[in-house]
Amino acid sequence: MSLIPALKKRYAVKKYNPAAKISSAQLDILLEALRLAPTSFNLQPFHLLQVTEPAVREHIRTEAAFNQPQVTEASLFFVLAAETDVDEQTIAHSIDLAAEVRGVARSTLEGRESQIKGFIMSLAPEQRLIWAQRQAYIALGVLVSAAAEAGIDVSPMEGFVPNKVDAILGLQTKRLRSTVLVAVGVHSNDDEHAHLPKVRKSIEQIHQTI
Amino acid sequence: MSLIPALKKRYAVKKYNPAAKISSAQLDILLEALRLAPTSFNLQPFHLLQVTEPAVREHIRTEAAFNQPQVTEASLFFVLAAETDVDEQTIAHSIDLAAEVRGVARSTLEGRESQIKGFIMSLAPEQRLIWAQRQAYIALGVLVSAAAEAGIDVSPMEGFVPNKVDAILGLQTKRLRSTVLVAVGVHSNDDEHAHLPKVRKSIEQIHQTI
Repeated sequence: MSLIPALKKRYAVKKYNPAAKISSAQLDILLEALRLAPTSFNLQPFHLLQVTEPAVREHIRTEAAFNQPQVTEASLFFVLAAETDVDEQTIAHSIDLAAEVRGVARSTLEGRESQIKGFIMSLAPEQRLIWAQRQAYIALGVLVSAAAEAGIDVSPMEGFVPNKVDAILGLQTKRLRSTVLVAVGVHSNDDEHAHLPKVRKSIEQIHQTI
Repeated sequence: MSLIPALKKRYAVKKYNPAAKISSAQLDILLEALRLAPTSFNLQPFHLLQVTEPAVREHIRTEAAFNQPQVTEASLFFVLAAETDVDEQTIAHSIDLAAEVRGVARSTLEGRESQIKGFIMSLAPEQRLIWAQRQAYIALGVLVSAAAEAGIDVSPMEGFVPNKVDAILGLQTKRLRSTVLVAVGVHSNDDEHAHLPKVRKSIEQIHQTI
């Protein structure tokens, strides 16, 4: 389905069919969308963590996510986590990759490397995390779009306690911060939210010419 | 074009063709994508401000955006701005709209209204702005996706000084904060970035099973 009609049709599923599974081909679409999303300086400072162990999903649901059923009932459950320590090495790796993919000498990209380092390292650590989390949100928007087009149900979820999710998954030692939860699956036929008309502001309320 | 190939093809245009114009039908696709983007509690706390006056675009380019040519050379130029003061009235208006669209008594949505107010009003003002800006970034991701599918060139731009853009456009009195700049148009045939292979991490570098 083309994107605008698909966006009209999609909704944030509240009740999943636990028996309905997402195929690996469907998962690949979402991962590829996430990977292709544009990010500031192309640094892609996030990881999509797929939580597979049912007991861990149950633990997140009850201890960190206000008992929302999507955490355990969707086919797949992810934590989109931002990198807490984007540093000079991160930037150097990104430049290494660019030189390799483009087949150019690394030295030709060193001006750009300095520019990126100048910006990123001027941010205080908490600002750097806010910056990384914003990039994760761009990728979330692209992932939601790809899911809508492919007819895959997803629920982005901000209702959770990041410190608790980080503790459950040991994210601090991985230098990651849980940013948004994403349930992916097939909605239940009796999800009452499936039948509600979509509520959105008018174009005039969100677009102005100045 | 379907979304994954379109995302592979798109790139952040650096050099636009100033003579090539975006049609109103193309603009409508972008606005509709922005409008349909999912946001936390469906509050859509952002405005897409279309800056039309050439002198104002020039002013932003030279004074606030490091002289990046996209600001003045793209067919259209926008500031995506987040609301700085999402408050109880904002939430009440959102509930009014939901009741109207769904054709239900407002009283049936008051439990949800309390829940949203409880969350939003518990955030300090600066945290509330960070939250609103994250929602703008989801919408940016959806807008970029819709542009890619429709073959419209866009450049999301974080390289600017928000305080200066806010001052130039008088955003503070509108209780808005410039969050990301978006140039929209048709790339120039001699934009050297058009021909560079896309650089991205591998799936394995951004997706892990834990």
